[in-house]
Amino acid sequence: MCELLGMSANVPTDICFSFTGLMQRGGKTGPHRDGWGITFYEGKGFRTFKDPNPSCQSKIAEWVQNYPIKSCAVVSHIRQANRGGVNLENTHPFTRELWGRYWTFAHNGQLSGYLDMDTGRTRPVGQTDSELAFCWLLNEMEEKFPEPPQDMIGVFQFVAARCGVLKEKGVFNMLLSDGEYVMAYCTNHLYWITRRAPFGKATLIDEDVTINFQEETTPNDIVSVIATQPLTDNENWHRMKPGEYGLFHFGELIDGNAAQLHDVPFAAAKPGNQAPTEPLE
Amino acid sequence: MCELLGMSANVPTDICFSFTGLMQRGGKTGPHRDGWGITFYEGKGFRTFKDPNPSCQSKIAEWVQNYPIKSCAVVSHIRQANRGGVNLENTHPFTRELWGRYWTFAHNGQLSGYLDMDTGRTRPVGQTDSELAFCWLLNEMEEKFPEPPQDMIGVFQFVAARCGVLKEKGVFNMLLSDGEYVMAYCTNHLYWITRRAPFGKATLIDEDVTINFQEETTPNDIVSVIATQPLTDNENWHRMKPGEYGLFHFGELIDGNAAQLHDVPFAAAKPGNQAPTEPLE
Repeated sequence: MCELLGMSANVPTDICFSFTGLMQRGGKTGPHRDGWGITFYEGKGFRTFKDPNPSCQSKIAEWVQNYPIKSCAVVSHIRQANRGGVNLENTHPFTRELWGRYWTFAHNGQLSGYLDMDTGRTRPVGQTDSELAFCWLLNEMEEKFPEPPQDMIGVFQFVAARCGVLKEKGVFNMLLSDGEYVMAYCTNHLYWITRRAPFGKATLIDEDVTINFQEETTPNDIVSVIATQPLTDNENWHRMKPGEYGLFHFGELIDGNAAQLHDVPFAAAKPGNQAPTEPLE
Repeated sequence: MCELLGMSANVPTDICFSFTGLMQRGGKTGPHRDGWGITFYEGKGFRTFKDPNPSCQSKIAEWVQNYPIKSCAVVSHIRQANRGGVNLENTHPFTRELWGRYWTFAHNGQLSGYLDMDTGRTRPVGQTDSELAFCWLLNEMEEKFPEPPQDMIGVFQFVAARCGVLKEKGVFNMLLSDGEYVMAYCTNHLYWITRRAPFGKATLIDEDVTINFQEETTPNDIVSVIATQPLTDNENWHRMKPGEYGLFHFGELIDGNAAQLHDVPFAAAKPGNQAPTEPLE
């Protein structure tokens, strides 16, 4: 299997702390030796660093850990291959354009009976079930909305419903971003946390590193992190349930289908609007 | 304007030497301060490093110069913006998937009267004439060949013919690669050189660096480099003419429309087959 890491923030934020924890699981504290990748959005553009080598030994991973690239939307992945060879074209995340936006996708899990899924003219380049599922989702999105849609929350709700089809084919934990929104879909292992003022200290599980977020942030910062397993051992991570999806926008969880979310009103989907701190936080 | 750099090789080769020369022109020996980017193919996959900051000051550019990434197909670009703001989404090269391959494009020049060109469902993300031209070319390619074609040389000949339409709209020097082939199209400034045994020494124009290729290569290596301006001052670079295109495959020029090319038979399009050394070399 693999591990996922995503971030959504209301101000450009570096992910060095969480990324350092994740990279240890790429062959050191975890078995995910078959490559790693990370995509940072900057405006409508993005930059991706990836490598089919184990992240704990990767020079590029070391460079990314030490060079604070700031972003409001990040998708990262470390791989333990099950479908498709260990090479660059099979290394997540995958990015494709749709509706004049770049969409980035990473998957944790394994699918069966997926080879006959119709991806239309969006063809996979590599051999993974993951990239094929991504191409299928993009094709479904384009069939449903041939012209660029205005209601992006509606788009993500549609994607969540289609993820239900993929869930029937195996394990499908996913992160998907268009650079503005970060969507998480869970079939078994996915956790999230939203950090906001008053900030405290956090300690990585996988490496002897503690960070004092108060020194690194301003009082208005809101940052959500989504991961396959919690990355810190002194914070409360929310565990997602099978079939649950969550949509993050500039740091806030703004939509989802978890039971608790329907008990409280959602904040409007724009930066600076605080979502209820309970039970989201 | 901008500067282009491309490479095609029959064995994975690092481009550190040529890239070091190009990066000096990004704000030091040249005025191209508005970003830089480089795409390396590895198999069917690729990795891109890019930055909207001047290359001569970029930490990522420094890292790429010092870390030898080996590839058989490379496309690079430094930018002096004329259409579209200085930001990541407007930074070349651009990469999109078509027919299950990743296509990478970089452009030097400036177009007029391009806004009404039909890009179909392949939409630009940024605001440059270059990305719009790329999307238009991809759409033309897909309209002409709805299913993945077998004859790739025929595809590039079709692209060269469509480049003639873009040439009518201004200056259009272009590099295009699918990871296996590297195509160059010229409207005014584009040079190329093929290096093969016996290798000699080369001295960069823009930086006080000399390389002895004999120490860095094996006798079977064949490497072609394409650039807006020659990068070395002690080698013979071939100048391309307006409307000329050249197609490189594993280091060799295998197709093109220059008059001299039609005087000699072409080598078959597979690695190891030597093209005639005169007048190509």
